[in-house]
Amino acid sequence: MACRFSVLVLLCVVTSVLTLEKGTFLDMSYGYDENTLAYPSVGFFQLSIGERGPTDNFPWLEYNYMSLPEHIGTHIDAPAHFAKGRMRVDDIPIGRLICAAVRVDISEKAKIDRDYGMTVQDLQDWEEIHGKIPDESLLFVYTGWGAFYPDRLAYQGTTRNDTYLDEQGESLVHSPGVGPEAGTWLVQNRNIVGLGIDGPNLDCGQNEEFMTHRVLMEADIYGIENVANLDQLPNTGAKVYALPMKIVDGSGAPVRIIAMLDGDSSSGTAMLWATFSVCGVFLVISLMFQ
Amino acid sequence: MACRFSVLVLLCVVTSVLTLEKGTFLDMSYGYDENTLAYPSVGFFQLSIGERGPTDNFPWLEYNYMSLPEHIGTHIDAPAHFAKGRMRVDDIPIGRLICAAVRVDISEKAKIDRDYGMTVQDLQDWEEIHGKIPDESLLFVYTGWGAFYPDRLAYQGTTRNDTYLDEQGESLVHSPGVGPEAGTWLVQNRNIVGLGIDGPNLDCGQNEEFMTHRVLMEADIYGIENVANLDQLPNTGAKVYALPMKIVDGSGAPVRIIAMLDGDSSSGTAMLWATFSVCGVFLVISLMFQ
Repeated sequence: MACRFSVLVLLCVVTSVLTLEKGTFLDMSYGYDENTLAYPSVGFFQLSIGERGPTDNFPWLEYNYMSLPEHIGTHIDAPAHFAKGRMRVDDIPIGRLICAAVRVDISEKAKIDRDYGMTVQDLQDWEEIHGKIPDESLLFVYTGWGAFYPDRLAYQGTTRNDTYLDEQGESLVHSPGVGPEAGTWLVQNRNIVGLGIDGPNLDCGQNEEFMTHRVLMEADIYGIENVANLDQLPNTGAKVYALPMKIVDGSGAPVRIIAMLDGDSSSGTAMLWATFSVCGVFLVISLMFQ
Repeated sequence: MACRFSVLVLLCVVTSVLTLEKGTFLDMSYGYDENTLAYPSVGFFQLSIGERGPTDNFPWLEYNYMSLPEHIGTHIDAPAHFAKGRMRVDDIPIGRLICAAVRVDISEKAKIDRDYGMTVQDLQDWEEIHGKIPDESLLFVYTGWGAFYPDRLAYQGTTRNDTYLDEQGESLVHSPGVGPEAGTWLVQNRNIVGLGIDGPNLDCGQNEEFMTHRVLMEADIYGIENVANLDQLPNTGAKVYALPMKIVDGSGAPVRIIAMLDGDSSSGTAMLWATFSVCGVFLVISLMFQ
């Protein structure tokens, strides 16, 4: 009997391992071209072609040049962006860029109020369902704004790209974000490595003080803005690889973000639980037939 | 008895899972600054500071602008770089950028001949020891040239940066690389996704025809040049994440390469064997005490 169950356990474990091996990739970065959005006044991405065709020396040759601000398209805000002496892009340890991802969905609230700021209550409601926000995770705030990208007016609330302030110093930008109280709560009560958003700004568009940026970055937490395909990220269980261009002393950089979904083989936790379950079943059956 | 062994199995599996979880990261990208090397004639990286200090509106603010060619520093050569109609940077599937890594060491031969080109024999010698080059792996060629980076003369064999050819059309560059026969052999006999090198050129410096580039890229295999820290990559067993900046229609791009060493948690195969072993031990013990 023990032998038969051993074979059963063996088969179950092998099956679970093989199943977990099959992850699917989610690309969470927008491509860079002349339509790539940056916050008003930040600038543009420009690609100029060096060669694209046959040359005297080669049957085919392509190469290009580019110019861009650090903070454009899907980009990382290093903590130094808003906080003196904090990490620049090339200081961020890899272990803070390859980590667990969680997603907090505020898209229904943002539909009603385009300047909605995520609250402490939103975070506590999330934890009520999913448990505590894991240590050293990258927290994504899903606003639904990705659906508007790259429509400048819908996405940023203004077609202006020369300034984000009007003559009275009021913000022209409208977009949902993270309220400063929620940012402060995260810094004081949880241990995240970064905060990402599928909109133009970690802060709500109407917060011209950039308080959420400042609070997070003072605590050496990085930001990621203009995250793509956040509608497809599950609220928990994904692993994320957010690898920025390694700009020496950069305050920000283009970042390529890939999430691994559907039972990433690298998800030790999922593996642990699968193994636990199988062993648990075996334990119960063994006890029954003892 | 069965119960006691169940607990044993449970403990063993949990231990193996927790052990496998501990990988270490290897950063295989150089930082971008004014010393970043590009092949002679390709150009320079320039960072210009927008703000770096207190401003009227913020206690601290940093942001910068940059200009650069695609093919500088640690960068990917998309197949379209040298082959008409082949993949550009944003066409490369993620599954070809996150994969197994192998390393072929030609550093001793490059010490003797700075224009050494890896041969078919080098590849066959490697396979003699390590087995067949795995399908869909990224193959790194370790020349030892990383030790010279960013010393232009030692690394590229010339201090010229305006051209790589002299008046007679002969290459000024000296650096080890991959011989075209080895490139052709890989295309015809193996199934790699990309070829990386810790030098300025996939081809040997003296091959001004860029034949290895052309042969590989015609087969939609990408290249990576100026790979950092290749001395620390094991010959087999690492997993690599090579995530390029997503330039629309790019022929190349800055790429951040991270290798996971020492029992990556994502190594499903290692996990499978660990689980197999534990279950095997249990099976034998069960049979003994039946």
